[in-house]
Amino acid sequence: MANSSTGDSATERLVRILETFTPTRTVQTASEIGRRAGLPSSSAHRIVSELVENGVLDRDDDRRIRVGMHLWELATRSSHALRLRQAAMPFMERVQSRVREHTQLAILEQDEALFLERLSSPQSGSNITRVAGRLPLHASSSGLVLLAFGPAELQERLLSSRLSPLTRATLSDPEAVRRKLAEVRSLGHAIAPGYIEEVSTGIAVPVRDETGQVVAALSVVLPREAEPDFAVVELHRAARDIGRALGYRS
Amino acid sequence: MANSSTGDSATERLVRILETFTPTRTVQTASEIGRRAGLPSSSAHRIVSELVENGVLDRDDDRRIRVGMHLWELATRSSHALRLRQAAMPFMERVQSRVREHTQLAILEQDEALFLERLSSPQSGSNITRVAGRLPLHASSSGLVLLAFGPAELQERLLSSRLSPLTRATLSDPEAVRRKLAEVRSLGHAIAPGYIEEVSTGIAVPVRDETGQVVAALSVVLPREAEPDFAVVELHRAARDIGRALGYRS
Repeated sequence: MANSSTGDSATERLVRILETFTPTRTVQTASEIGRRAGLPSSSAHRIVSELVENGVLDRDDDRRIRVGMHLWELATRSSHALRLRQAAMPFMERVQSRVREHTQLAILEQDEALFLERLSSPQSGSNITRVAGRLPLHASSSGLVLLAFGPAELQERLLSSRLSPLTRATLSDPEAVRRKLAEVRSLGHAIAPGYIEEVSTGIAVPVRDETGQVVAALSVVLPREAEPDFAVVELHRAARDIGRALGYRS
Repeated sequence: MANSSTGDSATERLVRILETFTPTRTVQTASEIGRRAGLPSSSAHRIVSELVENGVLDRDDDRRIRVGMHLWELATRSSHALRLRQAAMPFMERVQSRVREHTQLAILEQDEALFLERLSSPQSGSNITRVAGRLPLHASSSGLVLLAFGPAELQERLLSSRLSPLTRATLSDPEAVRRKLAEVRSLGHAIAPGYIEEVSTGIAVPVRDETGQVVAALSVVLPREAEPDFAVVELHRAARDIGRALGYRS
């Protein structure tokens, strides 16, 4: 779309504006948005008004701005995420009711694990995952599954980049991650004890679509001291059922 | 943002492009998008490429276009819908496990009921509601709740417009709808037997936020012949618990 005087396109500006909203910053003034998105104040007010008119942003009675419900509707109603999530939900609920800990679904997005869904009960333990939040591939059990069954090119690129540890347990040596990926492929699941938070263990299995391709990782987060075996069995059963719901015949 | 030669803004074009994607049309070519959004073919290809570069749309290996996962992420991670939905989920799961029929959460959006969530089991009966789908306010139990507790201006505007019946049971006479809304306010819930589909009954209750304002409708869809009493009790209990999770003290 048409470029501004600074050479960035309308689409780039739009994405930059949307990126100023985060899980902990859900409401802003037009001036704050402009400042954070690097737009001149006069443009910011004009562009925000235009986005409000079209339902991309919403303005409340106090003139504070949020991401628009109509944008959520348009981004969700036809999305791949929704189909996958709706197919997975009944089986995620079964895992959650039997394992009684956080149950999550993630996909590969821009070299990270993007979480489409998280079910928890008030009794579940510590967990930093959020819906529409991300975790690094090498550190999360979901990410290790998505990486292990993902494109070779992605594995090589990631293993040659800097792998930041999140805890003392996170694997950050490329050779250790490479061995872990081989283990994940051989076992068919990933166990990540303390990699994201010292106090918890992530366990993830691959979910396959109708072509047999791994399209998601299904995971649970247990307290570090818990036995993983029961969760592993339940996850494998659920992943197989989700695959069938998506049309996969093994 | 900058206007095109036809006078529409970049934002209008973006929304028009996103609106060409629907629950039943999740994948399109750039040419199809251009035709459906009323854009000249050359502009369509250029704009679609720009949207793909920025993650607003995704292009697969066959060059087919979908709504982008990054757009879903940006539209969801800070959204009001997500906060409401995450607060409601544990209690929606309780309703679903006890009533064993579709359990749904809807908000008021552009004069319709927009559904944020739907839980179902394979055994649940007929239901046309979808996540990120909409239903008319006067015809759905959720819509009647949102209308009954909504702005007076909205009620007057809606009651003076044409109210299309969806089935023989849908209330389409303004006076009948007005009486129904009074009944909903007095009972504290809406029962809509056969209004959306002849074979099912919607039952909805209001959900209040920390200020006591009705921000959503929680509903179930039962087979038409089922007794509503148990569902009404469970819905009221869940709505109260969701209100508390949102900080509401009655």
